[in-house]
Amino acid sequence: MRMFLLPIAALLSPGSLLAETRPALSPPEIVAVAPASDWVRIAPADLLVMDLAPTAAGTPRRVVIQLLPAPFSQGWTGNIRKLAAARFWDGTAVVRVQDNYVTQWGDPDAEDKAKARKLPDGLAVMAESAYTVDQIDIQLAQFGEERTPESEAQWRKDLSSVKRAPPPEPRRNPDIIGTRTRSAPDGWHERDAYAPYVQFHAGWPLGTAGKKADARFWPVHCYGMVGAGRNMSPDTGTGAELYAVIGHAPRHLDRNIALVGRVIEGIEHLSSLPRGTGPLGFYETPQERTAITAVRLGTELADLPGYEYLSTESASFARYADARANRRDAFFIRPAGGADICNIPVPVRRAK
Amino acid sequence: MRMFLLPIAALLSPGSLLAETRPALSPPEIVAVAPASDWVRIAPADLLVMDLAPTAAGTPRRVVIQLLPAPFSQGWTGNIRKLAAARFWDGTAVVRVQDNYVTQWGDPDAEDKAKARKLPDGLAVMAESAYTVDQIDIQLAQFGEERTPESEAQWRKDLSSVKRAPPPEPRRNPDIIGTRTRSAPDGWHERDAYAPYVQFHAGWPLGTAGKKADARFWPVHCYGMVGAGRNMSPDTGTGAELYAVIGHAPRHLDRNIALVGRVIEGIEHLSSLPRGTGPLGFYETPQERTAITAVRLGTELADLPGYEYLSTESASFARYADARANRRDAFFIRPAGGADICNIPVPVRRAK
Repeated sequence: MRMFLLPIAALLSPGSLLAETRPALSPPEIVAVAPASDWVRIAPADLLVMDLAPTAAGTPRRVVIQLLPAPFSQGWTGNIRKLAAARFWDGTAVVRVQDNYVTQWGDPDAEDKAKARKLPDGLAVMAESAYTVDQIDIQLAQFGEERTPESEAQWRKDLSSVKRAPPPEPRRNPDIIGTRTRSAPDGWHERDAYAPYVQFHAGWPLGTAGKKADARFWPVHCYGMVGAGRNMSPDTGTGAELYAVIGHAPRHLDRNIALVGRVIEGIEHLSSLPRGTGPLGFYETPQERTAITAVRLGTELADLPGYEYLSTESASFARYADARANRRDAFFIRPAGGADICNIPVPVRRAK
Repeated sequence: MRMFLLPIAALLSPGSLLAETRPALSPPEIVAVAPASDWVRIAPADLLVMDLAPTAAGTPRRVVIQLLPAPFSQGWTGNIRKLAAARFWDGTAVVRVQDNYVTQWGDPDAEDKAKARKLPDGLAVMAESAYTVDQIDIQLAQFGEERTPESEAQWRKDLSSVKRAPPPEPRRNPDIIGTRTRSAPDGWHERDAYAPYVQFHAGWPLGTAGKKADARFWPVHCYGMVGAGRNMSPDTGTGAELYAVIGHAPRHLDRNIALVGRVIEGIEHLSSLPRGTGPLGFYETPQERTAITAVRLGTELADLPGYEYLSTESASFARYADARANRRDAFFIRPAGGADICNIPVPVRRAK
């Protein structure tokens, strides 16, 4: 029998939580004591490394991005690999910084046909429907299978035959507020303003309709997530113009723009840039832009450190997520009893 | 009969929304066409104006903060008025910038008894219970009444005699997702991960328990909100050390730290500062800090522009909030059907 997605309700069941007899650990402390087996190495092939020109003081500025794994956004991330291999971004720039929203980069002359850089051949053109993937795609990707009529039929059969507990009735549950001792906030994952359910899967925050065998999943716009800029629909962007979220999660963009990854190191080099003063935060003069010296795939850089994320399927992550929702460390007076998915950032670190 | 708080459910009832026969306006367009009568002037007495040292290029950096009105956080905002009048902050500095979290300022030597600045006399010492206020406080503040045993008894009587519709049953309502035509997202205000209900009141985003006559209300930590730093409980801070939120809303701080206001202009001068490299984003050397040249109350500055906010009780705001939750302007493909309260920033502008 294949493994199914572990819902957050299971991760946070009361039995999975330790009885606390000493002062509660803070979320960073829980992460610090997580066993090595709870960390998952990120393949260098899934890393995109962007070097900005050094600061005036000569400080280097490197931004490391983890690309979304299959089955998410593979058309765009495929394009991004081709663009990096073609050195498309070398000599381009950060062109837009809009406060509490996004930092965006790419070819400053993209809209000027005479001056625009040539895109490499063979880029995929993606449809809007690719903003989401269904559960079968996720199952196939997990097991390295191709999507064929046969594999799809098999998965539909498997999925429909699974005995699942009915989803819990939604509830507001006022008593989760302000109760220090409540350890299982089994409501929080449903109390999302944008999606019927949210959950973590293989290290990523996802929204989902959640009930049916062919339920759709989609990555969500949390702080640090990277997406592919586009013009008006039906354009979906090529991946040549990218942005990173540097403010409150703009979740209204979910399923409207393709997410392609997230910044795992160096987000401060994007979030602390001067804000553009033109419409939408675009810089008004070329001098204000920050130059991009190089963008490379992780496999091209011999000296790149290894990176790993805390498995979202691990007991440590369940404990961490619970602690984010119920702060019991000394500073806090009233644990919230919940947290929104973007306030539970997946821990990522350099591998030891 | 006195007026009661208008719940968001009423603001967003289907009847209050215009049938759209032309391309839908974007949220900024709705704000732009709001009639002058929907805007509320902010009293200069409620403004705190902080000037940072100019940038290396000589650009001035002014941050304008609106203090929370009664009945919220009055002990702390009272202290802040005294601190500004005593010129306490002139010559202090921004001491901490933690990415995706807060920018914090105050006396860099506050922890060093020999060097710490003297606090002015007469500052209030606030209890933790003051982090929230109850509905009676709000009613009294709206009508400029003192809280006395008699006024409280009268308000309890009034509140308990009001015929209220029972609160709607909570529901997840999957069909609000992806439905372009749904105009009344009457679920969104309940789908908060942190509070049983959230709502806007007199221009501010609040959490509330919401059901009972003496329900508690509290301001919530959205982007740009300003709070009073404190040490470990039961310390609640004096207001001499302040922070502004510069990242995803850290709602776990709600009711754990006192909010005192919000930045209404110049947040980019705080959000784009270099991040501190010490623990919690504190700067490691004095040279990294940004100097504060002056902090004044709005009433002290003759040349200060007027500011106004879009009344959260107005039809324009209802339309704006609905549009934030259901983007129907041309760029969008799938309206979300909801929005979290911190993704509906209250519009503020210079008065015309």
